[in-house]
Amino acid sequence: MLAPGVDRLVKLLARLPGVGEKTAQRYVLFLLGADEAIARDLGGELSALRDRLRPCDSCGNIAEIDAEGRAECSICGDSKRDATLLCVVARVHDLIAIERAGSMRGRYFVLGRLLSPLEGVGPDELPIAKLFSRIKRDGVREVIVATPPSVDGEATALLLKRELASLEVSMTRIASGVPHGGDLEFADPITMGRALSGRQAL
Amino acid sequence: MLAPGVDRLVKLLARLPGVGEKTAQRYVLFLLGADEAIARDLGGELSALRDRLRPCDSCGNIAEIDAEGRAECSICGDSKRDATLLCVVARVHDLIAIERAGSMRGRYFVLGRLLSPLEGVGPDELPIAKLFSRIKRDGVREVIVATPPSVDGEATALLLKRELASLEVSMTRIASGVPHGGDLEFADPITMGRALSGRQAL
Repeated sequence: MLAPGVDRLVKLLARLPGVGEKTAQRYVLFLLGADEAIARDLGGELSALRDRLRPCDSCGNIAEIDAEGRAECSICGDSKRDATLLCVVARVHDLIAIERAGSMRGRYFVLGRLLSPLEGVGPDELPIAKLFSRIKRDGVREVIVATPPSVDGEATALLLKRELASLEVSMTRIASGVPHGGDLEFADPITMGRALSGRQAL
Repeated sequence: MLAPGVDRLVKLLARLPGVGEKTAQRYVLFLLGADEAIARDLGGELSALRDRLRPCDSCGNIAEIDAEGRAECSICGDSKRDATLLCVVARVHDLIAIERAGSMRGRYFVLGRLLSPLEGVGPDELPIAKLFSRIKRDGVREVIVATPPSVDGEATALLLKRELASLEVSMTRIASGVPHGGDLEFADPITMGRALSGRQAL
């Protein structure tokens, strides 16, 4: 519907998560009407993105590539962080959510994916060996498994428990229950069951 | 929260309509995880966007810039379109919505903005002179005013009626009423009033 020369751009934008052709068109119309510099700067930043950033060599978080071609994220590079406390998450999104809470003083390990028999993701596709050597390298004492409380997240947590059993490390799992501000009336039965079974002394 | 080098990109993406910092972060995480070519191609397309496209010289629709530096959109360049029927819209978005309906066989004129006393947009800021000469150039016989049925849209329609009164051209306004599939119960009083006053013989 727009000029033919813009089709490729619309199709590329529509590959972004949650963006369809209509939203992509809206972005293009905005960029055509706004200050010329926005489209150009955005173009430059995106072109350079994959040359500047890649997953952190140690944990999988996003990291800038340094002059020697190594990538260490700001959390792994922060010596004030407790290296003996390691929080295992599925995705960088989850790491960001935990950092936003501000109470995690350790470091992270991003699995990148969850065990998922339904989608054909088996144990061999998870970076267990890398996690294993990370734990030994840093002398980790506690591993917090912060995979989501879903079927795949729980399966992954159980797999990690089994795979890391030979290490002298305490393994914990984030709590699951009724969220803050949540109404008990609207909690689903599984969440309510977890809230009850995970009850703690007052 | 992400690597410092990505802040500028997140801020630029957050300028897109409907995109906040969180969505922008999600786009960046997607681009970092997806095929490298996507970020690079998107970067290239965006960098070139404003060199390749600009508003059509005749109507304001999006058009590709040709070798001589002129821009004529595909609708103005389509000789099968009826040049004597001109549909005036506020934005390119509206033109796209009308084209999608598929029943407009004439051409368009994009005002770019609406008369808005509240936002300080007066008659002088609308391209009335350009519309005037377009109507004369093409021998337009009917002008369909398709500005939105809002306060500003109606004010603009009345202004156009007055400004173009000296031309021998019939001026029409798109219908306003209860939308297709809409429930009368939920129509607001103004819409319902328009549906009644705009009633037609069965």
